[in-house]
Amino acid sequence: MLRKNASKNRSPDDDTLARIDAWWRAANYLSVGQIYLLDNPLLREPLEVEHIKPRLLGHWGTCPGLSFLYAHLNRTIIERDADMIYICGPGHGGPALVAASWLEGTYSEVYSHVGPDADGLRALFHQFSYPGGVPSHVAPETPGSIHEGGELGYALSHAYGAAFDNPGLVVAAVIGDGEAETGPLATSWHSNKFINPAQDGAVLPILHLNGYKIANPTLFDRIPQDELKSLLKGYGHKPYWFEAGFDDEKPADIHRRFATMLDTVLDEIAGIQEDARKGSTTAVQWPAIVFRTPKGWTGPQEVDGQPVANSWRSHQVPMSGVRDNEEYRHMLEAWMRSYRPEELFDEQGMLSADVAQLNPAGQRRMSANPHANGGLLSRDLRLGDFRHHAVDVPAPGAVNAEATRVLGDWLGAVVEANPDNFRVFGPDETLSNRLNGAVETGGKTWNAEILPTDQHLSRTGRVTEMLSEHQCQGWLEGYVLTGRHGIFNSYEAFIHIVDAMFNQHAKWLKVTRQLPWRAPIPSLNYLLSSHVWRQDHNGFTHQDPGFIDHVVNKKADVIRVYLPPDANTLLATYDQCLRSHDLVNVVVAGKQEQAQWLTMDEAVAHCTRGIGIWEWASTGGGNVDPDVVLASAGDVPTIETLAAVDLLREHFPDLKIRVVNVVDLMRLQDAREHPHGLPDAEFDALFTPDRPIIFAYHGYPWLIHRLTYRRTNHGNLHVRGYKEEGTTTTPFDMVMLNDLDRYHLVIDVIDRVPRLGRNAAGVRQQMVDARLRARDYTREHGTDIPEVRDWRWPGPS
Amino acid sequence: MLRKNASKNRSPDDDTLARIDAWWRAANYLSVGQIYLLDNPLLREPLEVEHIKPRLLGHWGTCPGLSFLYAHLNRTIIERDADMIYICGPGHGGPALVAASWLEGTYSEVYSHVGPDADGLRALFHQFSYPGGVPSHVAPETPGSIHEGGELGYALSHAYGAAFDNPGLVVAAVIGDGEAETGPLATSWHSNKFINPAQDGAVLPILHLNGYKIANPTLFDRIPQDELKSLLKGYGHKPYWFEAGFDDEKPADIHRRFATMLDTVLDEIAGIQEDARKGSTTAVQWPAIVFRTPKGWTGPQEVDGQPVANSWRSHQVPMSGVRDNEEYRHMLEAWMRSYRPEELFDEQGMLSADVAQLNPAGQRRMSANPHANGGLLSRDLRLGDFRHHAVDVPAPGAVNAEATRVLGDWLGAVVEANPDNFRVFGPDETLSNRLNGAVETGGKTWNAEILPTDQHLSRTGRVTEMLSEHQCQGWLEGYVLTGRHGIFNSYEAFIHIVDAMFNQHAKWLKVTRQLPWRAPIPSLNYLLSSHVWRQDHNGFTHQDPGFIDHVVNKKADVIRVYLPPDANTLLATYDQCLRSHDLVNVVVAGKQEQAQWLTMDEAVAHCTRGIGIWEWASTGGGNVDPDVVLASAGDVPTIETLAAVDLLREHFPDLKIRVVNVVDLMRLQDAREHPHGLPDAEFDALFTPDRPIIFAYHGYPWLIHRLTYRRTNHGNLHVRGYKEEGTTTTPFDMVMLNDLDRYHLVIDVIDRVPRLGRNAAGVRQQMVDARLRARDYTREHGTDIPEVRDWRWPGPS
Repeated sequence: MLRKNASKNRSPDDDTLARIDAWWRAANYLSVGQIYLLDNPLLREPLEVEHIKPRLLGHWGTCPGLSFLYAHLNRTIIERDADMIYICGPGHGGPALVAASWLEGTYSEVYSHVGPDADGLRALFHQFSYPGGVPSHVAPETPGSIHEGGELGYALSHAYGAAFDNPGLVVAAVIGDGEAETGPLATSWHSNKFINPAQDGAVLPILHLNGYKIANPTLFDRIPQDELKSLLKGYGHKPYWFEAGFDDEKPADIHRRFATMLDTVLDEIAGIQEDARKGSTTAVQWPAIVFRTPKGWTGPQEVDGQPVANSWRSHQVPMSGVRDNEEYRHMLEAWMRSYRPEELFDEQGMLSADVAQLNPAGQRRMSANPHANGGLLSRDLRLGDFRHHAVDVPAPGAVNAEATRVLGDWLGAVVEANPDNFRVFGPDETLSNRLNGAVETGGKTWNAEILPTDQHLSRTGRVTEMLSEHQCQGWLEGYVLTGRHGIFNSYEAFIHIVDAMFNQHAKWLKVTRQLPWRAPIPSLNYLLSSHVWRQDHNGFTHQDPGFIDHVVNKKADVIRVYLPPDANTLLATYDQCLRSHDLVNVVVAGKQEQAQWLTMDEAVAHCTRGIGIWEWASTGGGNVDPDVVLASAGDVPTIETLAAVDLLREHFPDLKIRVVNVVDLMRLQDAREHPHGLPDAEFDALFTPDRPIIFAYHGYPWLIHRLTYRRTNHGNLHVRGYKEEGTTTTPFDMVMLNDLDRYHLVIDVIDRVPRLGRNAAGVRQQMVDARLRARDYTREHGTDIPEVRDWRWPGPS
Repeated sequence: MLRKNASKNRSPDDDTLARIDAWWRAANYLSVGQIYLLDNPLLREPLEVEHIKPRLLGHWGTCPGLSFLYAHLNRTIIERDADMIYICGPGHGGPALVAASWLEGTYSEVYSHVGPDADGLRALFHQFSYPGGVPSHVAPETPGSIHEGGELGYALSHAYGAAFDNPGLVVAAVIGDGEAETGPLATSWHSNKFINPAQDGAVLPILHLNGYKIANPTLFDRIPQDELKSLLKGYGHKPYWFEAGFDDEKPADIHRRFATMLDTVLDEIAGIQEDARKGSTTAVQWPAIVFRTPKGWTGPQEVDGQPVANSWRSHQVPMSGVRDNEEYRHMLEAWMRSYRPEELFDEQGMLSADVAQLNPAGQRRMSANPHANGGLLSRDLRLGDFRHHAVDVPAPGAVNAEATRVLGDWLGAVVEANPDNFRVFGPDETLSNRLNGAVETGGKTWNAEILPTDQHLSRTGRVTEMLSEHQCQGWLEGYVLTGRHGIFNSYEAFIHIVDAMFNQHAKWLKVTRQLPWRAPIPSLNYLLSSHVWRQDHNGFTHQDPGFIDHVVNKKADVIRVYLPPDANTLLATYDQCLRSHDLVNVVVAGKQEQAQWLTMDEAVAHCTRGIGIWEWASTGGGNVDPDVVLASAGDVPTIETLAAVDLLREHFPDLKIRVVNVVDLMRLQDAREHPHGLPDAEFDALFTPDRPIIFAYHGYPWLIHRLTYRRTNHGNLHVRGYKEEGTTTTPFDMVMLNDLDRYHLVIDVIDRVPRLGRNAAGVRQQMVDARLRARDYTREHGTDIPEVRDWRWPGPS
């Protein structure tokens, strides 16, 4: 819990304020140095052309504000022994956060080639935004960060995700006023309704009202102050307004004003937490700070007669071409010397001992806080035994079950066993996706008003739902980045809403895997249900299986895609996912009642292999050399495939059929392309080198070709899947619209297997007729069971 | 301009109020009928099992509120002769909007098989959410709609997009309180800062505070009323609060209260427009209505002892299994009869003449307003001649230019020639993407505060920028759906933010193409710049070429992808795009200065074909039978390819090289798969049936395989592209990190072309060395020109 300031109502003494100012100047000096300098880092000689980088890249504008806040937060961390992390929404401000971690010593601890002295400083400057160096943004490489600043919009969602179930943590979340215009950020303010001050940490939103974006003013800076305050109140916050840098107020006075306000704000947070932990459940208004300072504060006021500070011209590099322009070079030198580096660094170039007193100790440094390297704190889940939730399957097809409901039962047990280490997120679809067990056991997080008629809402709920996929994704990212575990369940089609967020998380994982000091974090797990084939209520807009295609573009080491065909395989798959680290696991599974195929033991074996021959469904137990391979991936395609096998057995008893089922889609890829990829020999052993393969796939068919185009037998591979045909209709009509139905699969076999016998043409025509009859029937009766031979598998024959 | 109410301060007379109530009852009756009934549409016989649909699908909860609003808006349309459309954010409320268009007669005009009488009503009920029928959501099939209700979040963006440059139009935008939780919707309230009341139409946001989502209460209904009002004020609105249905207030009183409020609100809008059109530029507060009514209002209060009205149980079908449950059937009948259908429909089942007086006439009906079938109003752009903006290219590679800057010059002229029919949208990146011409000529839309130091901001600006890709996409969709033209320019990587929105627009286009009554609308055009290969400032987070992969999953008839390699081809490409209809055009083009290849005439010819041999770069003018084909798609890959050709010519003067360039990516596909696809014979003629092909591609390499896996020579196709390697580094380091650099392409040729001669191994080693030297050089010097043989094309040899 955050402590109140012991010395309440007393503002910091002059020495402390001077130290804050010095630390801030040091950070600003380092920010400028990173952007401009190759050498002469302490300006102990006059600045010459060769000290300047040939290509100036970076973003100065937001840095001074970010460093100002960092310095002030440091004081409060020390005084309150606070456990705090810093989320830097304006991620362009890479130099500021790199500077802070160097000043705190963390940078040199993590990267030994960048020491805490003049040589280190030279290396720090040289590497910034330089080939082979470090990115210009706050990035995985930046100690203390869980939030990359490339794509904007997720600062607050990440902050709240980090705060959930971390009762001792304070997350200072700086939001750029550019970022504040994005949709995800605009709704993420509402996260405060999901924070329980008794069990969760606190988020302190700080809106960095900097005035300008790349080339435009920001909206929030150009609406009346009252309107912006009203907006924050509307978001449920108590706004605090701070403004500085627009006049000639002395730094000491500015620091005093801000320090006093910050103490008030943090005391308010401490008070809210104290009350709640004594049992109060009264609605609270969390404080939020509006921090209005000029863009490029303390930087050049004017260049070539154009305003630079307090304008969009400060966004990136205030003066470019400094090498070729002596006047600019003098301006740069004067600018850097205005921070008085001689007061800040000692002979060796180390931060002066006095200024260094503003660095918190050890893990209290925000750059070294273990929450920002969440793998360090991560505890494995208590998963129990998922086998206890298995569906009893006496024979393939003999019983029905709803896969996600079965998973939900187990998740309920997981929720119960891990009350502070596991959450389920979803955009109001967790019950619709039939994870009822999780909801019934865990309750749904809700800290706004609760009425007596409400069901499952709870201030301590473990299923966290808001109608925003962005929020679900951002919260879960924040949660796993700080070392905890979770699932995001969504309708399959609408997971595209977070395509871009997935990209960024996958990129984050790719880079962290190359950083030995970053401990592995729990995987980010998706459960996509209410999928393309079963959107009976909602139709075409809800039919899109393309997230898989999107995901497989990212680095193979960080992505996995699973398509379990029934409940037991879903359980076994999710057990793998919840035990894994540093991955994104995408699992697609239906929620509707459907036939079950595998016993629990079979399911575990099948999921361990990820792909395999279903002997019981194949002719001769799968051991014979087949005439045709029928493969499937996905629950509905598997049903249609088995029904097709049934028809083929009836009509062509001599046909040798092999049935292959794919759970782990990445098995289809080459072992050189993906760590789960099958070696060619094994692939050929399953799919044969030369027989026709009819592959029924859950998603867009071309993905299967893209994954297998190098395989020996690719020329004989024929894939059926979703080809963007759909509407509000029955499940059976859906498969027919996309030629994935059992009759069409039989036709595909007939068309591709030579010498099927005299009756092939006749059977083909029967299939054509049966399709039309089935469609008419399903359209007429509006139900999902066609009046045709039942698909239930008759068992091994 | 919206008129003020002539009879100000006088509420409607009792007859009118009764008519509003009757129309509302009729709409509710029709909504229930669509969800439940197969037959007996007027309940002229007792309700029997066979009258009820076997499968009940649809969403009742939001319908009564939507219809209430529709009825009231109709009165004001008639009284003010208003030009109004209705955006239905709660798109689940399909039955309500279908009901409205049937009541207004539009439905029967558009769909002759659904007449305006009892038979028509039977057909209307039967088809709803039924196989082969109509979707359960507001959809392209719904007359009067430009907004599909499947994926939530875009109601307000669409509304504002429709209002831009439509000074006479009022867009009533109903926002569901579920949708209001999404990110895109949360920021779209700020659209009001981009509306100029002098030149644009008006948007009236109506927040339908319905209380419940699928399985949860809505946040906005569970925060204090003052907080919600404060939020709307913060968004710049003047909130009006209306609440009804929670007590036993008489319908007439409810209608009177709402009608009075609506008149006040519309008069306020009329006043704002009047002032602005007289020249006022004072900041305005647009009104917004909070419409709080129970979910499932007028429906069953309780089923099985559980509350249904005013609960999430009203979200979909209040009573399921009605066929099998006699009590439910009686409840359903009583519910439907509570609307007193006998008063509403005449003998023939037509809407009674008295009630029908609430229908506006002809195109004033919201269901028949041509703005909602924008192709009807669409005017072609005055494009001038893009050739006037051509770069003079005396020889391939002889001059440099920035492609997007050249395009921007032309777009400036287009902006000028089409001052009310063309806009450029972008998330604060239009200048960064170097479309300066458009900005300088057109100015940037801004209706918040403007300071003297601002550049290009203007109340009448034609470049509309907000830091939200969702807003840019939503606005542009609204703009083209109402028949106007535009471009969305974005950084390539972040266009994934709108993946889901693109999906929905592509689905909309696919369906509208099958609806003869929907006139074609202008295409939705993307310009993706600041692309993967040139993110020198920003690094890995900004490097993602996967939008193309996402786009090509959608129906071939609606999507096009272009990768012009230089400025003149970009001009020619965009000329095609701006002339096209009912498409999504994706154009990827760099902004950096680079060599130019084609004269304007050559560019037009090349873009017309979309793919072709570059004779001047090929051995023997491209006519000889080549040893190897070097193909490229994209500007940077084309540079590297030509540089590789240069190296190959130097080292292997006898090697016969063919250079193929691809502008229109869909040419690679089979003619059976895509309307732009090349027939196999033509593909083989370009790529040969049997020679090695080294293909340098802009994006993820596997996409080229996915497009070409059926081609004769696919086995010899070797693709280089982005394989998810990157950081903040030089452009040359980027191509090297991904093995797309000239040296690697030469190595690829050496490794694949047999019998290159004795010096092949030596040249290979030279290339390996040159790569390392080039990387060292670029890393050391931090510049983008490696110290190696210059890439500039020496011209035909």
